[in-house]
Amino acid sequence: MLMYRRLLAASATLALISGVAHAQDTKTAEGLRDKALLDRTAWEITEDLTTSIGPRIVGSPAMERAKGWGEAKLKALGFTNIKVEQFAKSSWTRGEESAWLVGPYPLKLNIVGLGRTLPTPAEGIEADVALFRTYAEMMAAPEGSLKGKIAVITQPMVRAQDGYGYGVAGVSRRAGPAEAAKRGAVALLIRSVSTSDSTVPHTGVTGFGPDVVTIPAAAMGVPEAEQLERLAKKGPLRIKLKLASTTDANDVAWNISGEIKGSEKPDEVIVIGGHLDSWDVGTGALDDATGVAITTAAAKLIGELPKHPKRSIRVVMFGSEESGGSSEAYVEAHKAELPKIVLAGESDTGADRIYSLKLPAGAQKHPIATTAGNLLAPLKIFVNRDPSAHGGSDIEGLEAAGVPSIELEQDASRYFDYHHTMDDTLNKVRPDELAQNVAAWASFIYLVADSDIDFRAMKPASAPAAH
Amino acid sequence: MLMYRRLLAASATLALISGVAHAQDTKTAEGLRDKALLDRTAWEITEDLTTSIGPRIVGSPAMERAKGWGEAKLKALGFTNIKVEQFAKSSWTRGEESAWLVGPYPLKLNIVGLGRTLPTPAEGIEADVALFRTYAEMMAAPEGSLKGKIAVITQPMVRAQDGYGYGVAGVSRRAGPAEAAKRGAVALLIRSVSTSDSTVPHTGVTGFGPDVVTIPAAAMGVPEAEQLERLAKKGPLRIKLKLASTTDANDVAWNISGEIKGSEKPDEVIVIGGHLDSWDVGTGALDDATGVAITTAAAKLIGELPKHPKRSIRVVMFGSEESGGSSEAYVEAHKAELPKIVLAGESDTGADRIYSLKLPAGAQKHPIATTAGNLLAPLKIFVNRDPSAHGGSDIEGLEAAGVPSIELEQDASRYFDYHHTMDDTLNKVRPDELAQNVAAWASFIYLVADSDIDFRAMKPASAPAAH
Repeated sequence: MLMYRRLLAASATLALISGVAHAQDTKTAEGLRDKALLDRTAWEITEDLTTSIGPRIVGSPAMERAKGWGEAKLKALGFTNIKVEQFAKSSWTRGEESAWLVGPYPLKLNIVGLGRTLPTPAEGIEADVALFRTYAEMMAAPEGSLKGKIAVITQPMVRAQDGYGYGVAGVSRRAGPAEAAKRGAVALLIRSVSTSDSTVPHTGVTGFGPDVVTIPAAAMGVPEAEQLERLAKKGPLRIKLKLASTTDANDVAWNISGEIKGSEKPDEVIVIGGHLDSWDVGTGALDDATGVAITTAAAKLIGELPKHPKRSIRVVMFGSEESGGSSEAYVEAHKAELPKIVLAGESDTGADRIYSLKLPAGAQKHPIATTAGNLLAPLKIFVNRDPSAHGGSDIEGLEAAGVPSIELEQDASRYFDYHHTMDDTLNKVRPDELAQNVAAWASFIYLVADSDIDFRAMKPASAPAAH
Repeated sequence: MLMYRRLLAASATLALISGVAHAQDTKTAEGLRDKALLDRTAWEITEDLTTSIGPRIVGSPAMERAKGWGEAKLKALGFTNIKVEQFAKSSWTRGEESAWLVGPYPLKLNIVGLGRTLPTPAEGIEADVALFRTYAEMMAAPEGSLKGKIAVITQPMVRAQDGYGYGVAGVSRRAGPAEAAKRGAVALLIRSVSTSDSTVPHTGVTGFGPDVVTIPAAAMGVPEAEQLERLAKKGPLRIKLKLASTTDANDVAWNISGEIKGSEKPDEVIVIGGHLDSWDVGTGALDDATGVAITTAAAKLIGELPKHPKRSIRVVMFGSEESGGSSEAYVEAHKAELPKIVLAGESDTGADRIYSLKLPAGAQKHPIATTAGNLLAPLKIFVNRDPSAHGGSDIEGLEAAGVPSIELEQDASRYFDYHHTMDDTLNKVRPDELAQNVAAWASFIYLVADSDIDFRAMKPASAPAAH
């Protein structure tokens, strides 16, 4: 009840200072919103990218084809000022991989090498297992205590709407190999960072680079991890792991962009996008063909209006999210322009429905919060008053450089069932939820693009009262 | 409404002729039912078999370990007259397998060779694709028309509570390779016979033997099949398939059994069971560790009663269901005893809840139908009046020899998501539903075991009125 009265009070306060958007703008935004729900563009983009190109890891021939695809797509959809910005990015190519439990009895384990992992020797690594139920349990093991062993971490990931469990469980993947190496392990096998109960293993980048002392590392299916846990209670385990891969330090990647040119202040730019690269398993449907599709389709719908909004909208297909690099490259290439980038946002958590809008810090009590709340309510999206918007990996560089960012938070309950696996495929995308995403992006971005709102000028609100 | 009135009329009629079971029997059966819901034996058997033994294909060292496991388990649970009946069964062992789409672009396909398939040459088979959306579409292709091609069938399977879709879609797996061979194909790749949307491929036996002219054949994941369908609309496809396997014509298998000896007519026997063998992928949890566990736990609970029922209950762990053989071997070994086997039943559709009891033909209007209906109603099981009970693959031989059979029909809605895959693992078993299965088997089998009911003597009811 207390919470309910607070919400009423907040609404009343905001109603008083509302009215930032002209009535005509709101009407246009609502029209975009409703049109987007029936628009097929995002579905067609997703289907075309996943089918015509397939998986597209940085440095692969597929990624080179994706570059051409992206340029052609932006052109075909009426974008202008199309750019392909190349940057240096080393590549990593997966070879043959396998793992077997060899004792107490032979059992094939479904595994995938972590992204950028070191390979094993060609004959593989066979060793006794040191099994840890959590990452913290392994961290408590003294240096040298895992000498000659294969470390196994079986920590599960918690399903949460906001994807919070990914950060918690993901540390095994990101830092696990280097930490296991410190303790003397010869290889690391983790339970997939996954909310599913499936055998399909999840890859994803791990610590790499010339300064990282690490060991070969892979992720196994969830049933395999649970089987090892049960078997470890009965006696010692022994595993054989083979991982092959090659790298090319001199490879390149590209950030590709196109614009809907602003009608009054074309040099003021809103940057939105997703990432074009994917892992080499599955077809990168939810990660992140749909992000590219949602933002591209949203901008395209705005571009089809009789009159473009005041400011320009730029869609960026980032070229190296999975292994990092596109964010830094984008900032580097747009240094001079940074003060004119008025807002940034990325769609990179699949295609399930958006449930929350987070505004840049300081905007929580600005009338745009109420206007946006009214606009998005029919899509079942609330405005989250918590000023913690994180726009996505590819715009972290922009954020660090002072560019305000928004977050249109997607329901991640199902996302980590498929994330970074062979099951990240078109049949996991729900067309109606995809369209709801486009409706939110098109209508909200239009509202900001046709306004003079300066998020940079807003002071962060005081800390919210304890509740 | 019409259906509702008919049900009322049927209940009334049956109530009049009810009373076959003594009140004490019904009370004992109800006690077993309620006790079983809280009993952990079936879970412990399932966990132990899948963990300690793992996958156990006929002819494997694991299956030999499973034989010892089965004997020891029956002994430990108090069964008597334990037998290990050996029979000849050729074995088939899977080797390395892989498949790649090589044109229009390289894409790894998640595949599994069909059970008992021929291998490809060591270098694999690479050929152009002839894609068919249904099995019937391929059957319509003239002989010789697939010469030199890899045939691909992408027919999906329909999800249905009674598993009906398995029969429809499964023909691609069972007969597809031989039919594709007739038309000149060099290999066959089918969409997995699966209700899931997962990349995990489903194996299962295909036509084999000295008289079968066939070709190497495998099943691919569902997303892969849908990807090939979409790509086939754009242009020609080319696939490379590698399958390795070995066979041993002189191998053996075992039917293992133990009894709860009847207190008055021990020579009258009720045969129940599941199959101990599994495919070599996953750990055969739902297929069929749970069937073994459900029937063993049910009989064990009956065996713990202060007084055993009149007739004997025999639990059989059949030794070669997946590739066939245990049913015939069982009949052959028990020829002399057949007239004394008063009823047979098998649990072999996973561990999800039972929703229907089908009685032997002729028993639909016998008072046992009403007694059983009352007994099972709290478990949310109805008595299906359709006289079409099919007891399961391993008791087909008994049925053909005139042994009456029952079916405790499990909800198969989810079963074919995991069936014959690496995902058939313990974490797909729901303990509460497993216990509901045990409750149904224990209480119903007790009722028949402590009765003089002679299903053989019942005349099949006249055909039901059209409805």
